[in-house]
Amino acid sequence: MDLTHIPDNPYLLLTPGPLSTSKGVRAALLRDWCTWDDDYNRIVQDIRARLVALATASPDYTAVLMQGSGSFSVEAVLMCAIGPEHKVLILSNGAYGDRMGQMARRLRLNHTVLDSGETSPPDLEQLAGTLKSDPSITHVAMVHCETTTGMLNPAAAGRVVKDAGRLFILDAMSSFAGVEMDQDEVGADFLISSANKCIQGVPGFGFVIARREALKDCQGRSPSLSLDLYEQWKTMEEQGGKWRFTSPTHVVRAFAQALLELEEEGGVPARAARYRANHRAVVDGLRGLGFQTLIEDSLQSPIITTFLYPDSPAFEFKRFYKELKARGFVIYPGKVSEAETFRIGHIGHVFPEDMTRLVQAVKESMYWRL
Amino acid sequence: MDLTHIPDNPYLLLTPGPLSTSKGVRAALLRDWCTWDDDYNRIVQDIRARLVALATASPDYTAVLMQGSGSFSVEAVLMCAIGPEHKVLILSNGAYGDRMGQMARRLRLNHTVLDSGETSPPDLEQLAGTLKSDPSITHVAMVHCETTTGMLNPAAAGRVVKDAGRLFILDAMSSFAGVEMDQDEVGADFLISSANKCIQGVPGFGFVIARREALKDCQGRSPSLSLDLYEQWKTMEEQGGKWRFTSPTHVVRAFAQALLELEEEGGVPARAARYRANHRAVVDGLRGLGFQTLIEDSLQSPIITTFLYPDSPAFEFKRFYKELKARGFVIYPGKVSEAETFRIGHIGHVFPEDMTRLVQAVKESMYWRL
Repeated sequence: MDLTHIPDNPYLLLTPGPLSTSKGVRAALLRDWCTWDDDYNRIVQDIRARLVALATASPDYTAVLMQGSGSFSVEAVLMCAIGPEHKVLILSNGAYGDRMGQMARRLRLNHTVLDSGETSPPDLEQLAGTLKSDPSITHVAMVHCETTTGMLNPAAAGRVVKDAGRLFILDAMSSFAGVEMDQDEVGADFLISSANKCIQGVPGFGFVIARREALKDCQGRSPSLSLDLYEQWKTMEEQGGKWRFTSPTHVVRAFAQALLELEEEGGVPARAARYRANHRAVVDGLRGLGFQTLIEDSLQSPIITTFLYPDSPAFEFKRFYKELKARGFVIYPGKVSEAETFRIGHIGHVFPEDMTRLVQAVKESMYWRL
Repeated sequence: MDLTHIPDNPYLLLTPGPLSTSKGVRAALLRDWCTWDDDYNRIVQDIRARLVALATASPDYTAVLMQGSGSFSVEAVLMCAIGPEHKVLILSNGAYGDRMGQMARRLRLNHTVLDSGETSPPDLEQLAGTLKSDPSITHVAMVHCETTTGMLNPAAAGRVVKDAGRLFILDAMSSFAGVEMDQDEVGADFLISSANKCIQGVPGFGFVIARREALKDCQGRSPSLSLDLYEQWKTMEEQGGKWRFTSPTHVVRAFAQALLELEEEGGVPARAARYRANHRAVVDGLRGLGFQTLIEDSLQSPIITTFLYPDSPAFEFKRFYKELKARGFVIYPGKVSEAETFRIGHIGHVFPEDMTRLVQAVKESMYWRL
């Protein structure tokens, strides 16, 4: 494909996503598709099969795509998996765990939240104890990479949940395809992610990879027609890739290209290695300039890193942001409540050499030192 | 803008949408955006202002954009506008009226459906009578252009509803910006449409234009966090165009371009005139070839037309579809239950001369006559 006419972005997005995409992905946006035609539905089926293959080697899983942002898919799982006879335990240590709690409250689900605080991972012994002491808990939900801080929560929580005979919902929004794991080994009955994260597509839909039998149990439970994950799956499955309602065709086609490029890069192992190298370059570089990270390295994901504001009364995030943007990099504000921070993402079509340039740009943008 | 490198579509989409878009709209898809940055949020605010201006000259209205397909926005309105103290009367004469009924059932809303049958418009005298005899009805919902048949339901229903002191929800998915009307004159408290219809954007989000006071009454009512129209509006309003959750940035940017192109065409009057000319060319041409329309001309919208299968045992829709597709046109299967039909859409970046070519293609595709 000739990509010479696809424009460069004016700046790189070093955010938790939407992120910088390749020219190939953006070029794939350029065609209109008929949602009823096989040309399009074949693309959908191919995406579904590739997602399952990325998630696990087990044949027991299936994929559903859902319109909206990733949070729509998270809410779809909660409203379809948790019935009045169930109770979900939500492990929370940031904004996205809290959001699941908010959803559960709105939906009036039986639920309880185990909050380990923004800078600590969930305690797996406490989890095991809670599951033992409260037999009414049927499901456990956890965010894998909590981008509020950049912490990678322990996927091993899944084994604790399975050993206790409960179902596990993993919000892998920001980690799926950026961190190596096998869904079946982790024990995630439902895994949720979205188009604009580590697969490096553009935003417009989310997806759920589910153990087929767990998904079948969701039938007839959704209070919302739009977010009915089971009906969405059934239609895709029985009608060869058809979505129930209008799908974001251009975004879907670009996602197919993103999946292809992931494969060309060498799959998840190669991508995860690149993200780790990006992360390393940023953290080492910024530490060299005197910045400190919020959480300790052993808890840190290669997805996004939270840095503390420098200890200078002259520092203003907005000005720092503008200086960096003028040099071609867009970073992200902080989200934790415990400290003044900013975040730098390591995912997307960005490479260690971009991170080296970023570190130089940060150096030039430290106006409070000049 | 240089559009020479934007590819032609391999075929035109003559469907109810997603539809054929211009090269300018597709070219606008090509850039990545940061959802946190002013560069992007300014686009969102501009879109919101332009939508309100398209809808009405009254200052009492506001616009909210919502991720997902148009049906997500319809469901968001129903779940946020109709509380346990309310009752909604749904006027139905096709799949999209039925879908609102389905949503109301799922959401356990107090509701009643007045079904006029697929080929008849709602009876406004009956509507007035029902509102008089059932004072518990607080809202009335109607589909404006029911694409199941192509019927344009009477916007005058709005005046009947307002005269009876009730609220009016108009699903104007396929008519907004393709048919001239003023929302305030019609009396629609909530009007719903989506990106990939008569404004000619690509699919990925819907929008609601609401009377501000009616929208404010929606606070705290949504059982779904994702589909909470009030919170979505409040965030956009107070944070200068920010969406609560990740928005389909590329689709949004393309929609801004689509709004600009609508203005360049001469606004809704010019666009509506083009659609009427498209419709006229298709209907006259196909009648000349012996085809018959399902509904009478006085009920017909300029958006999409339903044609009866030709009276030949040799006719097969799939084959006809393929013949037309090979000639560069994709049409749509029928959706009514009462008759064997197919549909041809008149909306999108298509022109009367395309319709003339379509009629020629239909003539060449009438294999059952050859």
